[in-house]
This record gives sequence, C-alpha cells and structure tokens, in this order.
Amino acid sequence: MSATATTERVFNFSAGPAALPVSVLQEIQDELLCYPGAGASVMELSHRGKVFIQIMEEAEASIRSLFGISDDYAVLLLQGGAALQFSMIPCNLLRDSGKSASYLLTGAWGKKAIGEAKKEGTVDTIYSAADTGFDRVPKAGDYTVKDDSAYLYYCSNETIEGVQFQSEPECPTSVPLISDASSDFLSRPLDIDKYGLIYACAQKNAGPAGVTVVVIRRDLLEMGSDKLPGYLNYKNHADNDSMWNTPPTFPIYVLGKVAKWLSSDIGGLAAMEKLNHEKSNLLYQVIDKYPEFYLGHAQVDCRSKMNATFNLPSSGLLEAFVSEAGKNNLQNLKGHRSVGGIRASVYNAMPLEGAQALASFMDDFAAKNG
Amino acid sequence: MSATATTERVFNFSAGPAALPVSVLQEIQDELLCYPGAGASVMELSHRGKVFIQIMEEAEASIRSLFGISDDYAVLLLQGGAALQFSMIPCNLLRDSGKSASYLLTGAWGKKAIGEAKKEGTVDTIYSAADTGFDRVPKAGDYTVKDDSAYLYYCSNETIEGVQFQSEPECPTSVPLISDASSDFLSRPLDIDKYGLIYACAQKNAGPAGVTVVVIRRDLLEMGSDKLPGYLNYKNHADNDSMWNTPPTFPIYVLGKVAKWLSSDIGGLAAMEKLNHEKSNLLYQVIDKYPEFYLGHAQVDCRSKMNATFNLPSSGLLEAFVSEAGKNNLQNLKGHRSVGGIRASVYNAMPLEGAQALASFMDDFAAKNG
Repeated sequence: MSATATTERVFNFSAGPAALPVSVLQEIQDELLCYPGAGASVMELSHRGKVFIQIMEEAEASIRSLFGISDDYAVLLLQGGAALQFSMIPCNLLRDSGKSASYLLTGAWGKKAIGEAKKEGTVDTIYSAADTGFDRVPKAGDYTVKDDSAYLYYCSNETIEGVQFQSEPECPTSVPLISDASSDFLSRPLDIDKYGLIYACAQKNAGPAGVTVVVIRRDLLEMGSDKLPGYLNYKNHADNDSMWNTPPTFPIYVLGKVAKWLSSDIGGLAAMEKLNHEKSNLLYQVIDKYPEFYLGHAQVDCRSKMNATFNLPSSGLLEAFVSEAGKNNLQNLKGHRSVGGIRASVYNAMPLEGAQALASFMDDFAAKNG
Repeated sequence: MSATATTERVFNFSAGPAALPVSVLQEIQDELLCYPGAGASVMELSHRGKVFIQIMEEAEASIRSLFGISDDYAVLLLQGGAALQFSMIPCNLLRDSGKSASYLLTGAWGKKAIGEAKKEGTVDTIYSAADTGFDRVPKAGDYTVKDDSAYLYYCSNETIEGVQFQSEPECPTSVPLISDASSDFLSRPLDIDKYGLIYACAQKNAGPAGVTVVVIRRDLLEMGSDKLPGYLNYKNHADNDSMWNTPPTFPIYVLGKVAKWLSSDIGGLAAMEKLNHEKSNLLYQVIDKYPEFYLGHAQVDCRSKMNATFNLPSSGLLEAFVSEAGKNNLQNLKGHRSVGGIRASVYNAMPLEGAQALASFMDDFAAKNG
C-alpha cells in the first residue's frame, strides 16, 4: 500500500456498505493478483477448486467459532441481500403452513419484511412503534405471541431510525424466533440457540455487499416445498454447503477475513461489543449534553450502538454540520433520505479514533452554534 | 503490484469463475484502499452515494455501448446467478400466462433451466440433443416454435459439453427469444434487438461471481405479478435502476472495468470475437491433428469458442495430461465432474499466449504419448 492511500482515507460513517478494517483491506490488496499458492486472484478461482473451498470453509468456521454455533444449525452464504430473505423466510416457513406469522414492527426494514410476508400468508403485526415514529422497541408485556405462530420475526437493529433491541424479544419456546440482524450481526455475542433463523447481509459489520449470512436451525430446512424456485429453498443451499450454484466468491473471501480480524485483532465478540458500546456512548454523551441542539431520535433505552440518529434545530444548521464535518474528514453523515437528519454509523470497523473525532467535532459545533 | 505477483501467475483455464484481465486486476489493486476521490475503498462506499452511482452508471453505459443496446431495453445488474434467472424468467413470463414456454435443450444448463420452469407452468422441450450426449445444437428445421409460445429459451454456450450456437436460433417474431449467455456474453457482437431477454452471470467473460447482467425488453417488464417475491420481479429492479436493494457493489465495479477494458484495450466485441476465434482454433487444430488421441466432444460445426472439451484414450493419459500441463503453468484443465475429460476454457481474458502455450503443450504431449 502506498503512503498516499492511507493518508487520503477519511472516517466513513456510511450506514452501509460501510467501513472495513484497514488491515483487512491491506491483506486483500497484497493478495489481489495472486492468492497465496493459487497463481491467480481469488476472483479468478473456481468455486469447486481446493483453494476456494478452503476459503469458504474457513469463513464459515470463523463465524461458527465467534458465536459458538452448534451443528444443529446450518450456516449459509447466499446472494440477494436482506430483501430476498424478506421473501425466502415466509416462502419456506409460512406459505401453505396453515399458520400465521407474528411480526414486531420497529422500523423501515421490518415494514418491508412484512410487505413481502403478506404475499405468502397471514401476518399478525403484534407490535408496532409506528405511532411514535419508530423511536422504540417493545418491552416485556407489550405484545403476545400465539403458541402456534409459524414464527416470530423482528429486526434487531433498525438502521434508519437508530433503534436496537438490547436483547432478544420474549418468544414462546414452541415458536421459531427469526431475526434480521443485518446491521448488528457480529457486533456482539449472541446465544444462537435462542433462534430458529438469524440472517444478515454483510455490508454493515461483516463484509462487502453481495453476500448474506443465514444461520438456520436444521429442522427448519425441511419446511420449504420442492415447488419453490430452487434458489429460494434453504434446503438446496444447506445440502450443497452453499454451493448449489456459484457463490459470490470475492465477498465471501472478504467476509472470512473480517471474521478472522474479529477473533485475532479485536479478541472476539465480547470485546467487540465493549468497543462498540464505548464508541456509541461517546456520541450519545454529546447528544445528552446538548439536548436542545442535538435532537436524538430513539428513546434512550432503545438507542442503537450501531447508528446514532439525531437532528439539528434547523435545516441550515444541518447543512452546516454535514459540510463542516466533511472538511474534518468525517464523511457520509447524512440521514437516510426517508427521514433526514444525521445518522452516524459506528459499526465494528469504525475505529475508536473515528468516534472520538466525531464526538469532539459535535461538541465544538454545538458550543459554537448552540 | 510486486514483480513476484505477476511472475507467480499461471495460465488459468478455469471454466468459471475464470481469468480476469491482468490490467484490470492491477487497477483494482491500486485503488483498493482509496477509490480516487472517495477517501475509502470502493467496497466501503454507500450505493446511494455519488461516487458509486457513477461507477454503476458507467458499467451499464459500457455494456450498452459495446452491444449498441437501445433504450427499448433495460440493463439490470442482479444477484443470484443464472440459477435465479432459471426461475425468474418463468416466474415473470410463464406463470399464469395461459401459454407454454419452448425450450431448446443442448446441455446441462438448459436442463436445469427446464427443471425450474416446469415449477411455474407448461414447458415444451421442442429440441433435445440428449440422445447424442449433448454434442450439437439444432439446425434450421430441427424444431418448430408455436406462434403463441410464452417465449423460446436456449443456452447459447453449454460450458460443460463445449457446444455453442454460432448464431441465434430461428424464432417467430411474435415469440420473445430468451438466451442464457452466461458463458459467451461479451465474447462477440450480438444484435440485441433479436432478443426479448438475454442474461449472463459475470464470472466467465464479464467479471467476478456475484453479479448477473439481465438485458430485458421493456415491454416484458410489465408481465411480472405484484404477488411475486419482490426480488424476483424484474420491474422492481428496472424501476429502481438496479437499486431496489443494495446491489453487489464490488462485483459491479469489476464488471465495469472489464467492459472498459473490452473497449479500450481490445477494441470492442468484433475484435474480441476475432481473438477468441483465433485462441479456440489453436486448440481445435491440435485436436484435429490427432483425432485418435484427442477425442473432441462437440460436433465440429457446434464447437464452442469458449470451452474446448475433449477426452484422451485412457484415464492414465488423462491424469498425465493434467499433471504435466500443471507443471507447465497450464492450470484448471479438468473437465466438469459430471462428464470428465479435459475442458480448456479460453474466455475473453485468456491471452493469446495462454492458448498458444496450451496448443503447443498438447502437440508435444500427443507426439510423445500418441
């Protein structure tokens, strides 16, 4: 890597695709023309060849090891993003089941998931935070799940609104718990045994866009009908170690490197959670210091450790904030186009220095303009 | 790039994912930590940001320019590979149409496509080369397409068997012609106006695994039902410039670079076709020189310019061929596990020198062992 390349880099608060660890990018750069021992770029390797099969197996093994995932679960590496999971889940687990599926609605991504599920069967939206602008997640007792629900679905972290479940929602043991963990997967330890299925597109904490990790309890693999489009049937992927068709080889290679970085450089998911807590706290402390100036979106106990969302008192101040932050190498802070305001995403790969720099900038900006 | 990196590279005859142009890999390596002006790797860029939108628009524009694709067609960049297209095509164009779809069966990929189509409606396999082991494609008069067929589907190049349509099959103008061009897309000029839909996963001639190009006539976009899983409805992707959800950003970036290389370094698709003809001819000339030793699979007038498939007189000679070729830096020559033998893939990025080296090796090997 040239010296220029690193000095040109900014702190990138993009909500996804998002920052990746610099050391991972450097390894990829070093290996780009020749993966060690392969005589070719990793992009040029047959997915059926020994070298790539090892890359894929190691990526899966790293994810299994980080969470301690048992062999009761298959770990699939798929294409199509969360958007395809919105459909695959009800196609496999709701369609023709004679049951209804329960959904907790806490933001924009849950809403899209519900829209797709309704095409496949009956959906009970048993909790919705729509009436308060998606600023919260449910507390115990806020909803009831029928014991014979096909599954209970929720989105653990809503990136657009910046609200996050601090732990799994209550769910009867008879009902498979399903989580869209696209934006907080690998950001903290999880007890996977609590889940029927948990999935994440990679482009927040886990890697580049183009690969989606699906962890599914093996008994659920039998639920999909042979009549489904083949790609949509989880069993096809599980039976073929995610090589039912050509997998997205380069994104999987990067995912594997990020998972290894989490173990070796960070020290695992508990250490990652601690660091993520520290980073997001730096931002929320400034928001709480200037409550009339930084208008936090999420209720305090539902705040996301991944995406801090807030607004400023005027559109002029909002523009000035984005513009001056940019001059300080703090980039991609604009909120989602549907809600506006500021969204600072501090996923795994955002270094502590980045959060510190933003917190310091926010403090100065409020002191000057508040 | 270090000097070591290039000297370690082999001639990679993989059937896909396959060789990429070295100059493209070098550009990617140079930009890996900082895409010019972005302060971040291309993998870290939001797909909604100006920089990535320009990358995506340029990739599409390059493909349009190479073929001269008119605005009557949408160019979509999707996930899921050819396998998902096997389903998306009949989901959008056959299901509930009241029509049947016509398929020409010339190899393993066509067979898989038919399997998926049968889930969605009535399929007429109006031509099959199964009885001669998929060694040929149909001639004029070998089949009849009903005027009211939903579409006529074929696979232009069957990689496993090494047979290729030298031009489009006959098709009534009332029937949309659909081609799986996964393994010869961008290898030669095409008159896109002849097609209703033509698609290709990228990992043969066009880029890395993880992105699939779909060129679809806009009137066909209206055929998909709103009841389809959203990702499977072509209209969603066309209406959102392939950003209905997060696209596979890095594979698209590489695809764009490969398309630019085709224009600027090769000189366009006619020049590419000439070079591909030259490369494959080198191999077929040796096969024809030793017809008792190199047992070509495809009938001569159906030979693929992408994948030369042949066997040797004994399994011992086959093993020796692969092993000695490997020692000469000629790699990944084993045929598909379903048919065995040798498959030498000489896609766009295989340099003439690679085909020359293989042809020369084949000549020597036959002279010594024949």
